[in-house]
Amino acid sequence: MKYLQIATVIFALFSCNIAFAQTDKVVEDFEPSEVNQQGKEYPQVNSEGRVRVRIEAPQANNVQLDIGAVKYDLTKDEDGVWIGESAPQDEGFHYYQLNIDGASVPDPGTKYFYGASRWGSGIEIPAHDQEFYALKNVPHGQVRELQYYSDVQESMRRCFVYTPPGYEKNVDKRYPVLYLQHGGGENETGWSNQGKVNLIMDNLLAEGEVEPFIIVMDNGSWYRPRGERPAPRDTTQNDERERSWPPKGWADGFMNVLLKDIIPMIDSKFRTIPNQENRAMAGLSMGGMQTRIITLNNPDVFSHVGMFSGGSISVEDVENAPDFKENVKLVFISYGSRELENPRRGPWGDPKENTKALKEYGMNTHFYVSPETAHEWQSWRRGFYQFAPLLFDE
Amino acid sequence: MKYLQIATVIFALFSCNIAFAQTDKVVEDFEPSEVNQQGKEYPQVNSEGRVRVRIEAPQANNVQLDIGAVKYDLTKDEDGVWIGESAPQDEGFHYYQLNIDGASVPDPGTKYFYGASRWGSGIEIPAHDQEFYALKNVPHGQVRELQYYSDVQESMRRCFVYTPPGYEKNVDKRYPVLYLQHGGGENETGWSNQGKVNLIMDNLLAEGEVEPFIIVMDNGSWYRPRGERPAPRDTTQNDERERSWPPKGWADGFMNVLLKDIIPMIDSKFRTIPNQENRAMAGLSMGGMQTRIITLNNPDVFSHVGMFSGGSISVEDVENAPDFKENVKLVFISYGSRELENPRRGPWGDPKENTKALKEYGMNTHFYVSPETAHEWQSWRRGFYQFAPLLFDE
Repeated sequence: MKYLQIATVIFALFSCNIAFAQTDKVVEDFEPSEVNQQGKEYPQVNSEGRVRVRIEAPQANNVQLDIGAVKYDLTKDEDGVWIGESAPQDEGFHYYQLNIDGASVPDPGTKYFYGASRWGSGIEIPAHDQEFYALKNVPHGQVRELQYYSDVQESMRRCFVYTPPGYEKNVDKRYPVLYLQHGGGENETGWSNQGKVNLIMDNLLAEGEVEPFIIVMDNGSWYRPRGERPAPRDTTQNDERERSWPPKGWADGFMNVLLKDIIPMIDSKFRTIPNQENRAMAGLSMGGMQTRIITLNNPDVFSHVGMFSGGSISVEDVENAPDFKENVKLVFISYGSRELENPRRGPWGDPKENTKALKEYGMNTHFYVSPETAHEWQSWRRGFYQFAPLLFDE
Repeated sequence: MKYLQIATVIFALFSCNIAFAQTDKVVEDFEPSEVNQQGKEYPQVNSEGRVRVRIEAPQANNVQLDIGAVKYDLTKDEDGVWIGESAPQDEGFHYYQLNIDGASVPDPGTKYFYGASRWGSGIEIPAHDQEFYALKNVPHGQVRELQYYSDVQESMRRCFVYTPPGYEKNVDKRYPVLYLQHGGGENETGWSNQGKVNLIMDNLLAEGEVEPFIIVMDNGSWYRPRGERPAPRDTTQNDERERSWPPKGWADGFMNVLLKDIIPMIDSKFRTIPNQENRAMAGLSMGGMQTRIITLNNPDVFSHVGMFSGGSISVEDVENAPDFKENVKLVFISYGSRELENPRRGPWGDPKENTKALKEYGMNTHFYVSPETAHEWQSWRRGFYQFAPLLFDE
């Protein structure tokens, strides 16, 4: 009798698991997302990382949730309210949108973030390690919006500058600077809005894990000045542009603004230590690729290099970059683990192998893999969290 | 023959005007709005101030543009693209949204602004006087985002602080401070995002029209702390809450945070001149009403008072506020002209009459009317532009 009971329980548990897998049963413990607008109950997230959205659209024929490159159909109730949820998402921040009868629009329940070349909805899946970027009652730095004139572009530009707590009080202290770049389709707001880099720094500083430094976040998207056209490609020659990727103008344009406008402006407006030893550059995705090109070409300007999901630096790169090996004190490379399962490695070879070879070649390298994340902000938050304590630490 | 020709021309012109009025003909000189997202062609604005929106929604039954409390039907072309325009709008900034088959959503073409208790679309109608808030190549101040702990609320809060150009360089100089509040349904982002108060200040400073001062923009919306309930109203007595408007808790809550948390925090983090003579308060709409109550109750804290479309201060108010007449150096009241045509005067009487009486009573008052604008941001930009040069000018 006892054995029968146990067998029944085991069978019940087994059936339950099967049923779970078959019907894709949703765990009903949804809570409003952390980045919802004040007072908005939807979207919500559950403990599996599913996203549930809700929107009133009584006359609509078809409403979808578009997240992680998958479109999920919502269902309409008798009050004309559409509701539905996604498959489980990775921990951390994700962009998404709604599709209402063919119109792609932001969800009116969320705050908006710039990514995928638009201001759109975002959602935050609570992460097991979210404490490192949580808003806490610790001393906080400031994120400052600056308008400045670019001589290179002959127009106004905008950047954001993080100054660490104490910057205002310690008026005789000067600080190192990190130039930190966003990815393609993002802009100068990304690292503070989605990346929470200011909160990561505040928390690291409160724990004494990092030297205080200034972070400059500018817009690395490069638009060719109006009227300027590329020279026609010479197909009879081994045209450099056919081999170089990314195309030269793509990083050169921002490099020009960075070296001629941004760095001098920052060194004049802030109490920086304006030398190579105390100047770093890092970036994610496109910003990482820009960091690679700009630092390989300017080892007299930058001493610490970080690339998050944006390629790597090979021994060959360094052999072709005079003074890079001697002058650069850190090459930090990171990726999300899912990126390495499904490689997005660019044309520069395997990032882990490259970084290992570069260490054997004699450079100070670090390689970090964010567990169970892809080409997304949780990888970059974690990358920064690993990178920051290695900076300016002499 | 000559007379006949002239008569024909006159008749033609006359017919043309009639036709114009009858068909509400739209002038086809639309241009993308200044606050569109990068690269977005729509929404657009024409020289009449009409707003034209465009959205792809091939399966939709009904799409509307919702602006200025009017809903305009759009029409669909053969490609499933909906397009249409509004009646002419006032100069300046307006909130709006789209309605797609009953769903109220932001227009994916615009940047987003917080108002009407939501992050939503905004549009900028070019104004004849827009130079005063234009982004120019002049020295620029900084707009800083601060996170700080509130002892009153036992939680983190956020504010934005404008520091004038030169604040970083002139490390021995101390500055007066203006506390500047948004309206109902808005938040601490309003005065810089929609109000462009930083650009107005930068331009005024470049022209030498104003003394440099710091501007603190915090969130004046007051939410009762969780678990705290109002005492039951005593209907047998002449309960103060029945007579006072706005309700006491509504302004008292923010007053408490302002006096106990915000002002001490600002005076500790910035090089302020921390005294009454160098501290002003102003606000728009709800923020003006809060300014009225807070400054009437604290004439030892604030010396300059500004209320934009938010009521006025009467002689009776001042007679009931000890030390206000002696201590306060400026009472500035402004409105949009359309607000005075269709009064939104609150329970305190006619603002112009009140302000005139207060001047006769012996106080330094200013009354300003923004031409051909309503309860909207163009009125408040202009109000601030008139108010700022009167501050701290001894």
